[in-house]
Amino acid sequence: MNISHIEHIGIAVKSLETAIPYWENVLGLKCYNIEEVKDQKVKTAFFKVGQTKIELLESTDPEGSIGKFIEKRGEGVHHVAFAVENIEGALAEAESKDVKLIDKTPRKGAEGLTIAFLHPKSTMGVLTELCEDKNK
Amino acid sequence: MNISHIEHIGIAVKSLETAIPYWENVLGLKCYNIEEVKDQKVKTAFFKVGQTKIELLESTDPEGSIGKFIEKRGEGVHHVAFAVENIEGALAEAESKDVKLIDKTPRKGAEGLTIAFLHPKSTMGVLTELCEDKNK
Repeated sequence: MNISHIEHIGIAVKSLETAIPYWENVLGLKCYNIEEVKDQKVKTAFFKVGQTKIELLESTDPEGSIGKFIEKRGEGVHHVAFAVENIEGALAEAESKDVKLIDKTPRKGAEGLTIAFLHPKSTMGVLTELCEDKNK
Repeated sequence: MNISHIEHIGIAVKSLETAIPYWENVLGLKCYNIEEVKDQKVKTAFFKVGQTKIELLESTDPEGSIGKFIEKRGEGVHHVAFAVENIEGALAEAESKDVKLIDKTPRKGAEGLTIAFLHPKSTMGVLTELCEDKNK
């Protein structure tokens, strides 16, 4: 597949209200968007650092994937998202190389991107998201 | 502090020999350097993706920090490293804002960078490295 850059890093936090001031006041980054993604059961806050976004993820439901992640592992990096061209082709290539897919077909993610996740069992523990911006 | 981009993402793996083919053959990235960092008790493999490097970390000693990380949490993202100007100033600023430092003074890291770590207790679970390239 053809990865151009790291689109974002997803970080699970207990509270955006606590986390945003750290990212703004200590690291000096600016939160430019807060968005709820209802079907993911999260509220997200976005920062830009060079080519890459930081996506803070606060669970809105303990039964959602972020709620369960924090329950099991605590706060921390949840996933890494790569920007690809032709996400359908990238998924087909990954599957042909024996990578287990969480999403067999791409779906809508935050910020209007088309996304799909690879399973961390196939990616040595790194929950991996592929993203394509089809609005470009 | 003034962060320009994500310098690298450090990923703990059990075996570079197993991990490198995944990053090369599935994700299509090219390993351009393998380097042992003896005082960190790791062997590292580097890939470039846009502005950011991926640093795979294989433990060379079960008592080292990567060995212990994998023992406790399994493979996965270990740390996120931000490129800063004036790392000494960035550390002083972080400390003045009540961030606990792992390294009170910067030290040499892989690839000739000057580095220091912030403590994940102060960074909401994300082990955070600051890097400055003083050779530029």
